[in-house]
Amino acid sequence: MRIGLVASIAYCLMLLTAPVARGYDAIVEKKAFFVDHYTTINGGKIRKVLVGYETYGTLSSDKDNVILLCHGSVNNSHFAGRYDFSDLTPGFWDHVIGPGKIIDTDKYFVIASDSLTNVFANDPHVITTGPASIDPATGKRYAMTFPMVTIADFVNIQKQLLDSLGIRKLHAVMGYSMGGMQTLEWAARYPDMVARAIPVVAQAEQGPYNIELKDIVMSIIKLDPNWNNGNYYEQKQQPEEGLFVALKAFQMSATSYEPLQRKFGRTWADPLKNPAESWDNKFAVQDSFDRALRNAAKKADANSWIYIAQALNLFQTGHQKTLQDGIAKIKAKVLFIPSKSDLLMFPDLSREAYKLMKSMGKDVDLFELDGDGGHSEAQHIEKAETKLRGFLN
Amino acid sequence: MRIGLVASIAYCLMLLTAPVARGYDAIVEKKAFFVDHYTTINGGKIRKVLVGYETYGTLSSDKDNVILLCHGSVNNSHFAGRYDFSDLTPGFWDHVIGPGKIIDTDKYFVIASDSLTNVFANDPHVITTGPASIDPATGKRYAMTFPMVTIADFVNIQKQLLDSLGIRKLHAVMGYSMGGMQTLEWAARYPDMVARAIPVVAQAEQGPYNIELKDIVMSIIKLDPNWNNGNYYEQKQQPEEGLFVALKAFQMSATSYEPLQRKFGRTWADPLKNPAESWDNKFAVQDSFDRALRNAAKKADANSWIYIAQALNLFQTGHQKTLQDGIAKIKAKVLFIPSKSDLLMFPDLSREAYKLMKSMGKDVDLFELDGDGGHSEAQHIEKAETKLRGFLN
Repeated sequence: MRIGLVASIAYCLMLLTAPVARGYDAIVEKKAFFVDHYTTINGGKIRKVLVGYETYGTLSSDKDNVILLCHGSVNNSHFAGRYDFSDLTPGFWDHVIGPGKIIDTDKYFVIASDSLTNVFANDPHVITTGPASIDPATGKRYAMTFPMVTIADFVNIQKQLLDSLGIRKLHAVMGYSMGGMQTLEWAARYPDMVARAIPVVAQAEQGPYNIELKDIVMSIIKLDPNWNNGNYYEQKQQPEEGLFVALKAFQMSATSYEPLQRKFGRTWADPLKNPAESWDNKFAVQDSFDRALRNAAKKADANSWIYIAQALNLFQTGHQKTLQDGIAKIKAKVLFIPSKSDLLMFPDLSREAYKLMKSMGKDVDLFELDGDGGHSEAQHIEKAETKLRGFLN
Repeated sequence: MRIGLVASIAYCLMLLTAPVARGYDAIVEKKAFFVDHYTTINGGKIRKVLVGYETYGTLSSDKDNVILLCHGSVNNSHFAGRYDFSDLTPGFWDHVIGPGKIIDTDKYFVIASDSLTNVFANDPHVITTGPASIDPATGKRYAMTFPMVTIADFVNIQKQLLDSLGIRKLHAVMGYSMGGMQTLEWAARYPDMVARAIPVVAQAEQGPYNIELKDIVMSIIKLDPNWNNGNYYEQKQQPEEGLFVALKAFQMSATSYEPLQRKFGRTWADPLKNPAESWDNKFAVQDSFDRALRNAAKKADANSWIYIAQALNLFQTGHQKTLQDGIAKIKAKVLFIPSKSDLLMFPDLSREAYKLMKSMGKDVDLFELDGDGGHSEAQHIEKAETKLRGFLN
């Protein structure tokens, strides 16, 4: 209670002292969507699918004001607002969602859902079905017997969610990183439903560099003896160490060197403890990554990270024979928003997809996010404000 | 014998069919240099230091024609030639070393030495002292009791090697990656000895991005239960799996996405085995990395990789209070050669070091390697031929 009170005061103070551009100033709720049985695009069967979703704004009577937001690979559908007054971390795009904002909740009904096999399966705010779920057929956790899923499956589940709400048209689909791939998949898979698609820091297919990066994430997790071929759920020891290192490795690829240089330089974690003197002494950057990712690892599930990594690796827009076949299906206006300093989904990948679509006669545009934050520039989508407002109207 | 014969024939065929620009067309030998006892710059004591070295060309009677080459972190002093006729992989800069070449063995006496704690401690062609060596005090492997070393220590051992040969002046020091850092350390530590310094794909100090990347390499190795706090030498099971994944992670940071895109695209390792159908089925890029790095892991030593990673993390030119203090000591003409596509030691790091030296009134130049090979462009030093020939003369 006391923590809640202090947090509430902190929250109110923050609101009072915040700059004019405030975020989505509301308490939001994670709801659950249920599908009794689902068959993956590759024929895998999943019974009793449950995924979380959030909505902001009001669905119009014509149900024609919907913007679907898709989240990144190590995140969830929390895009705006807070869960309660003690919650100091707002949703991922909180600052651009709200009345009069770029994603204007006075105009649009915004909806976002948690992916299948979400990495943060143990986060109480995430609702997902994946290897950590109970298999109704056995009463035990699926572990690695869960069917392999793809980004097309995430999209198909979202489609059923929208169906359940009577939504037949999307004003726009927009997402960052893995969510940007979902965005393209939406445009290719349900071309008559999607008017506008905005893939942010994304790519039209997973190329070999990113495939190998994800292979490394998977290999790291499997190194942890507690991973035990995925059968760790009943163990006392969880593969938390492997998850922690895998999350560190991923986090590195999502950042860039300049912000770290500004923040840490070669500072030691403890000014009295020289890293040259003991293996226990760390640089500040090591300490910071360790704290943040140890914390994240507690909410994550090792098998789920493997499934998400594989879903990324299997991605090619439309999941057809070739990338061109997938792109050919798209009818939406597409706006690519890469980050110029991205070291994970390099801006060239968006530029190439843009050129390919252009050459195929598609209605496509490109806006590049300035800044040295790498892949993480996705969060600073406000840099594309003018372009986005024009594109959405 | 038969393999040797086949290899010799293959070698001769290769020489016959090679383009005009041939490499250093000679059989070379790894020699050993011995130091009875050495004290690290941080006070650690090492007895009976042995490091390997190679030489190409002839030392002039004035001993004033010496070019010292320094190798990268996951490599050794093999810069030119072959060890025997069955050896199909020549030294790292073989194509630019030889009579009339950029590094002209008609003019220069070229020398290179293996680092302390070399990663490939188990490679028969590497001679190094480190955690895998026997501690004369105990008769057992040092493991993690070996003193922490720095790049300044590698330089100090090289200095003793040069002393033993009566060499008092270096026409040039040149090295790539970790060797480029050694190059700067040489110029700062022995300023009166070094006339020219050429750091290739290097940086003047290890910044936080690279510190964290090396933290990840170390963390990966430590995940392997066979690492056992470094006490694995007597075990049946070696930490080969951890080493393998750590080498994969490092290799990724040393490459770039475009060469992988050209070489592999989204091709499967086996055209009949779709990665979407089984966890055992791989993409070609995964298979290629796995084969190459599993092989490399067999010659590597886990503890040594941890020591090298730490030596990199401790690096700041001159090992003084500040980087400026270290740079201030340099008297050599310096030529920075970054790779424009480098994703490990970003070209900006060389540009910043260049600007810093310029602002301090130093004699400094910069040449950027074109190409999309990332850090690995270091091998294509021939792209700087005109600049290098001018700088060396």
